[in-house]
Amino acid sequence: MNLIVLAPVGATVALLFAAYFTYTIFKVDEGTDSMKHIAESIRKGANAYLKRQYIAVGKFFAAIFVLLLILSYFDYVSIFIPYAFITGGFFSALSGYLGMKIATNSNARTANACTKSLNSGLRVAFSSGAVMGLVVVGLALLDISAWYYILNWYYNGDASSIASTMLTFGMGASAMALFARVGGGIFTKAADVGADLVGKVEIGIPEDDPRNPAVIADNVGDNVGDVAGMGADLFESYLGAIVSSSALAISAGLKGNGVALPLIIAAIGIIASIIGTFFVKAKEDVSQKSLLAALRRGTYSSAIIIAIVAYFLVSNVLGSKYIGIYFSILSGLIAGILIGFLTEYYTSDNYKPTRAIAESSETGSATVIITGLSVGMKSTTFPVIVVGLSILISYVVAGGLDSYSLGLYGIGISSVGMLSTLGITLATDAYGPVADNAGGIAEMAGLDPSVRERTDALDSLGNTTAATGKGFAIGSAALTALAFIAAYKDSIEQLVESNLDLSFQFDLSILNPNVLIGLLIGTMVTFAFSSFTMSAVGRAASKIVIEVRRQFKEIKGLMEGKVDPDYASCVDICTKSALRELVIIAAISLITPIAVGLILGPNGVAGLLGGATTSGFVLAVMMSNSGGAWDNAKKYIEAGNFGGKGSENHKATVVGDTVGDPFKDTSGPALNILIKLMSVIAIVFGMVILKFSIF
Amino acid sequence: MNLIVLAPVGATVALLFAAYFTYTIFKVDEGTDSMKHIAESIRKGANAYLKRQYIAVGKFFAAIFVLLLILSYFDYVSIFIPYAFITGGFFSALSGYLGMKIATNSNARTANACTKSLNSGLRVAFSSGAVMGLVVVGLALLDISAWYYILNWYYNGDASSIASTMLTFGMGASAMALFARVGGGIFTKAADVGADLVGKVEIGIPEDDPRNPAVIADNVGDNVGDVAGMGADLFESYLGAIVSSSALAISAGLKGNGVALPLIIAAIGIIASIIGTFFVKAKEDVSQKSLLAALRRGTYSSAIIIAIVAYFLVSNVLGSKYIGIYFSILSGLIAGILIGFLTEYYTSDNYKPTRAIAESSETGSATVIITGLSVGMKSTTFPVIVVGLSILISYVVAGGLDSYSLGLYGIGISSVGMLSTLGITLATDAYGPVADNAGGIAEMAGLDPSVRERTDALDSLGNTTAATGKGFAIGSAALTALAFIAAYKDSIEQLVESNLDLSFQFDLSILNPNVLIGLLIGTMVTFAFSSFTMSAVGRAASKIVIEVRRQFKEIKGLMEGKVDPDYASCVDICTKSALRELVIIAAISLITPIAVGLILGPNGVAGLLGGATTSGFVLAVMMSNSGGAWDNAKKYIEAGNFGGKGSENHKATVVGDTVGDPFKDTSGPALNILIKLMSVIAIVFGMVILKFSIF
Repeated sequence: MNLIVLAPVGATVALLFAAYFTYTIFKVDEGTDSMKHIAESIRKGANAYLKRQYIAVGKFFAAIFVLLLILSYFDYVSIFIPYAFITGGFFSALSGYLGMKIATNSNARTANACTKSLNSGLRVAFSSGAVMGLVVVGLALLDISAWYYILNWYYNGDASSIASTMLTFGMGASAMALFARVGGGIFTKAADVGADLVGKVEIGIPEDDPRNPAVIADNVGDNVGDVAGMGADLFESYLGAIVSSSALAISAGLKGNGVALPLIIAAIGIIASIIGTFFVKAKEDVSQKSLLAALRRGTYSSAIIIAIVAYFLVSNVLGSKYIGIYFSILSGLIAGILIGFLTEYYTSDNYKPTRAIAESSETGSATVIITGLSVGMKSTTFPVIVVGLSILISYVVAGGLDSYSLGLYGIGISSVGMLSTLGITLATDAYGPVADNAGGIAEMAGLDPSVRERTDALDSLGNTTAATGKGFAIGSAALTALAFIAAYKDSIEQLVESNLDLSFQFDLSILNPNVLIGLLIGTMVTFAFSSFTMSAVGRAASKIVIEVRRQFKEIKGLMEGKVDPDYASCVDICTKSALRELVIIAAISLITPIAVGLILGPNGVAGLLGGATTSGFVLAVMMSNSGGAWDNAKKYIEAGNFGGKGSENHKATVVGDTVGDPFKDTSGPALNILIKLMSVIAIVFGMVILKFSIF
Repeated sequence: MNLIVLAPVGATVALLFAAYFTYTIFKVDEGTDSMKHIAESIRKGANAYLKRQYIAVGKFFAAIFVLLLILSYFDYVSIFIPYAFITGGFFSALSGYLGMKIATNSNARTANACTKSLNSGLRVAFSSGAVMGLVVVGLALLDISAWYYILNWYYNGDASSIASTMLTFGMGASAMALFARVGGGIFTKAADVGADLVGKVEIGIPEDDPRNPAVIADNVGDNVGDVAGMGADLFESYLGAIVSSSALAISAGLKGNGVALPLIIAAIGIIASIIGTFFVKAKEDVSQKSLLAALRRGTYSSAIIIAIVAYFLVSNVLGSKYIGIYFSILSGLIAGILIGFLTEYYTSDNYKPTRAIAESSETGSATVIITGLSVGMKSTTFPVIVVGLSILISYVVAGGLDSYSLGLYGIGISSVGMLSTLGITLATDAYGPVADNAGGIAEMAGLDPSVRERTDALDSLGNTTAATGKGFAIGSAALTALAFIAAYKDSIEQLVESNLDLSFQFDLSILNPNVLIGLLIGTMVTFAFSSFTMSAVGRAASKIVIEVRRQFKEIKGLMEGKVDPDYASCVDICTKSALRELVIIAAISLITPIAVGLILGPNGVAGLLGGATTSGFVLAVMMSNSGGAWDNAKKYIEAGNFGGKGSENHKATVVGDTVGDPFKDTSGPALNILIKLMSVIAIVFGMVILKFSIF
C-alpha cells in the first residue's frame, strides 16, 4: 500500500474532529445578557480587524501574484508558483480566521462554564484550542497533499520535480503568517500597552475594567494576535518543515519515498494528537497542578505514540537501511520537549530567574529592565545547545558522516518530528488567550470573584503550556530554516544543471567575503526587523494612550462608571496602526534577499539566510523569554510577594511587563517567520538572482 | 632603507611626546585645597582599585603563563608564547595605568583651568587625552617592534615564522583588555547606577552632590572604566589589527615586506597623530561649536596625512604591483570615519532618534525603554552596510578576485588603516572622562556655577567625539576579528603541513553542521556574555544602593551636609564586586573556544568565531548606541525640553539612562574584546584542538 494516502486521510480526520469539538462548544450557553453583549463586541472588533487585514494583505497578494505570473511567463519561476502562493496564503489565512472564530465564540462560554467549576471551564477552553490545533494541521496537510497529487499527476510521478515545486509553496503561507503575526501582534500589544499605561499606571483602575476605553481592543487583540496570528504562524512552520524536508530527499537519493515520508509522519502525528486530546480529562474541581498534569498527559501520550509508530513508518517507507532517519525524528521530538522545559524554567515564577526579576523591583524599574534583559540573554544558552545537539545527532544518525545530503535530510526531518504533535501542543497553547478573554468578560460582566479566580487559574496554566508551545515553535523554526538553506543550495544547483547558459558554483565558506557580508547583513536584518516591529508597537500604543487619556478627560461620568467609553475608536486606531506598518514589513522581507542576491550573488544569499537564522533564533528566544519572565514577575508580585499589587515594586514590574509585551508577542515570534520567509523568497527568486547578480 | 626601523622610532617619538604633554599638564595648578583634596580621594580610589585588579589579574596571568610553559615544553605552542603573553598583558596594563594616572592628575587641573576660560580647560583635558592616546599606540608599537626584532634575529629573518609567532601575541593584551574593560566597566556603572538610583531618583539631590556616599566611587569609576579600561581595550585592538594583518601577508605571498607593512603604517599613523594634535587650537572662549571644529581639525588632518603618505609607503614597500592594498587602507580609514558619523547621528540629541526617545518619555519609562532599544537595533543597519562595503572593497581592490589570500590581507590591512590615527582619535575620546571628573570636582568643591557650565560644555563635546572614537573601536574590531579568523585558518593549515602525524582539511561551508553549530554557539555566547556583564553590574549596583540608603539612614546630619559620608565603603564594594566577576569572564572567554574545538574540531571553532564576530559586532553597536542615545535623551530633557529636570519625563529618561549605562560602558565594549580574545585563544590552542578533537 502506498502510505501517502494517509496524508489526505489524516487531514480530513483532523478537520472532522475540529467540527466535532466545535459542536461540543456551541452546546454550552454564553451566559448572561451582559456576557453575550461583551462577547459580541469582541467578536465584532476581531471580525472587523481581520476583514480589513485580509483586504490589505489581499492587495499585496494580488500584486505578488501578478509579479509571479509574469515571472512564470518568462520561465523564471515554475508555472505552479503563482497558484501555490495563493493557496498557501489562503489556507494560512483560513486557519487563522477559523481559530479566531472559535476563540471568540468560546470566551464567554468558558467564563460561563467557570461559574460551575474550574474543570468545565477547562473543557470549553481546551476544546477551543483543540479546534484551532486541528484546523491548522488539517488545512496545512490538506493543502500539501492536494498539491502533491496534482503535481504527481502533472509530473508523472517524477519525485524531483514534485519536491522542488512543493518547496516554493511555503511562500504564500509564510507571507500570510508574517502579516498576521506582525499585524495582530502590533494590534494586541498596542491595545494592551495603551490600556495598561493609562488605566493601571496613571489612573489606577484594575486590568479589564469596563471603564477603560481600550479594554475591548485589548480583548480583540488577544484574538487577532495570539489566536489568528499564532494560527497562521504555526501553519507556515508546519508546512515549511514538511516541504523543506521533502525537497532534501532528492539530493539525499531517497526519491519518492523520501519525499512522501514527511507527509506521512505529519498524518500520523495528527492521529496521535487526536488520541492525545482524549487524555485531557480531569475530575471535578481538582487543583491547578493536576490540571496541568492532565494537559501534559495529552501532549506526552501523543509524543509517545509518534515515537513508537514512526519507527515502523520509517522502516516501512524507506527500508531498514535508513532506520537512522527514525532517530533523527526522535531527536527533534525530544529537543522540542526539552526547549519547552527550558522556556518554562526561565519564564515561570516557580523558578529563580523570574523571581530574581521580581526581587530586582526593590531597586526600581531600571533594575527590573536590566535583570529581565539579562535573564532573556542568558536563557539562550541551553536552547542553543539543545538545538545544536539535535542538529548534530539528527545529522550523524541519518548517515551524514557518509553522505552529506542524507545528513541534511536528517536535520530537515527532525523538524518534522518536532512539529508532528503540533495538533495537540497548539491546542494546549491556543486555549490560553481564550481563558484570558474569559477572565476579561468575567470582570467586565461583574461576575462573582470566584469565577475570575477560576479563569485566572486557567490563564496562568495557559502561560505554562504556552511556554511549551513556544519551545516547539522556536526550535522547529531554527531546524526548518536550516533545512530551507540546504534546500536553497540544492534548488540553485538544479537550476544551474538544467540551464546550459548558467554557470555557478557555490563557495559557502564563511571566509568567502560574499558569505561573510551576507552573514553580517543577516544578523543585522533580525535586529532591524525587531526594531521596526517594536517601534511600531510603541507608535500605535502612544496613539492609544492619547485616545484613552482624551476619553477620560472629555467623557463626563466615565470615571464614575455612569457612561460607557467609546470602545470602537480604540479598536479602529489599533487596526489602522497595525495595517499601516505592514507595508514596511513586506518591503524588508521581500526586498532583502533579492537585493542581497543581486549584489552578492547566491553565496551572499546563503550567508544572509545563515546569519538571519542563527541570530534570529537566538534573538527570538531572548525576546520571548525576557517578555515571558517580565510578565510572570509582575504576576508573582500581584500574588502578594514584594509588596503585592499597587506597591512601588508592582509599578516597577509593570514597566518590565510593558516592555516585554512587544518582545514576546510581536517581535520574537515574527522573527521565526521572517527567517523562513526570506529563505523561500530566495528559493523562488533563485533564477532571477542567478541571472542578474553582480558579484 | 628598511622602513621597518620606523616602527621603534615612531613608538619612541609617541612616548616622548606623551612625556612632553604630561609636563605641560603638571605645570597647571590643581586649584583650591578642597579641589586638591577631592582629586586626591579620586586618585586614591582609582589607585586602590587598579592595584587590586592587577593583583587579581596577575594571578590569572601567572596560572596561564604556567599552563603555556607546560604546553610549550610539549611543543603544543611556540616557546615564545608564554613570554609574549606576559609582555602583551604587561604593556596593556601599563597603558591603562598611565592613562588613569594622567587622567586623575588632570581632572582638578581642568576644573581649575576652566575658572579662567573654556579654552584653557580644553587644553588641559585634551592634553591628558593625548597622553593617553600616545601612550597606547607608543607602547603597543614598542611591544610589537621589539618582538619583531627578537624574532627576526631568532628565525634568521624567516617572515613566516615571525608572523605566525607574532599572531599569538595578542592573547596577553586581549585578556588584560577584557579584564580591564569588564572589571572597570562593572565598577564604574555599579557606582554610577547606584549613586543615581538613590541620590537622583529617591532622595532628589543633584548629580555629583558631595552628600552622596557613592559620588567618589562614581568619579573613580570614570577613571578605572572609561580611562584605564578603554586604554587597555584600544591597546589590544591596535595590536590585534597589526599582528593579524602581518600574519595574513604570508599566505598572500607577500613575505617580509607584507609582514612589515602594518607596523610601518602604524608608525606613520603615530607621526600623523602627533602633527594632528597641534591643529587642536582655538581662540579664547569661543563657542562650543568651534571647539568641536578644532578637535575635528585635529583628527581629519591626521587622516589626510595618512591617506597621502600611505600611498607612497605601499608602492615603496610592496611595489606598485600591489598598489591596490593602498585602497584597502583607504577604505578602512573612510569606513571608520563614516561609522563615527553614524554613531553620532544615532546618539546625539541634535538628531531625530535621540529626540524620539526624549519624546517617548511623555508616555512613561516603559516607552522610553522600548524606543531606546528600537533605536539601538535600527542603528545597526548602516554600520553593517559600511563594514560590509569596506570588506568587499578592501577585498576586491587588494586583488581578492584573483587571489583569495591577497583579498583577506586587504581586509586585515583595512583595519590597520582604520586604526592608524588611533593616537589622535583616542585623544579626543579619552579627554571626555577627564572633563566629566572636572565637572564633578567643580560641583563638589563648590566652585562658581560658570565653571560647571564650562566643564559641562567640555563633557558634552566629549560625548560627541567619544561617539567618533567608538565608531573606530567597533568597526576595527569587526575587521580585525575577520582577519583573525582568516589567520586562524592559515595557522591551523601550517600546523597540519608541518606535522606529518596530523591530517585535517577545512570545510568551512555554512552547511557543514559543525560550522553551523559553531555559528549558533558563537551567536549565543555574545548574548550570554552580555547577560553576564549586565547582571554583574546589576548585582554590584544593588549592593551600592543598599549601602547608600544605609548611610543616609544611619549617618545623622548627612542629608543636611554637616557630616561627610563614608566614601571609601562604596569604593570598596565596587572593587570587590568587580573583581569577583572576573573569574567567570575568564572562564567564558577561555573555555568556550577550547571546548567547542574539542567537540566540533577546527571547523566548529571557525563557525564559533564567525558567529561571535557577526553577532558580537551587531550587538555591540546596538548596545553602545542605545546606551548613548538614552544618556543624551536624558541630557536633552535636562536642557529644558519636555518638562526639564525633575519632571516626570525626566524621571522616565533617567530609567533609560540607567539601563543604558551597562549597555554602553560595560557589555557593548567588552564584546569587541571578547570576539578577538576567543580568536587568539583558538589560534594559540590550535595544536591542542587538532590533536584531541572528537568530530
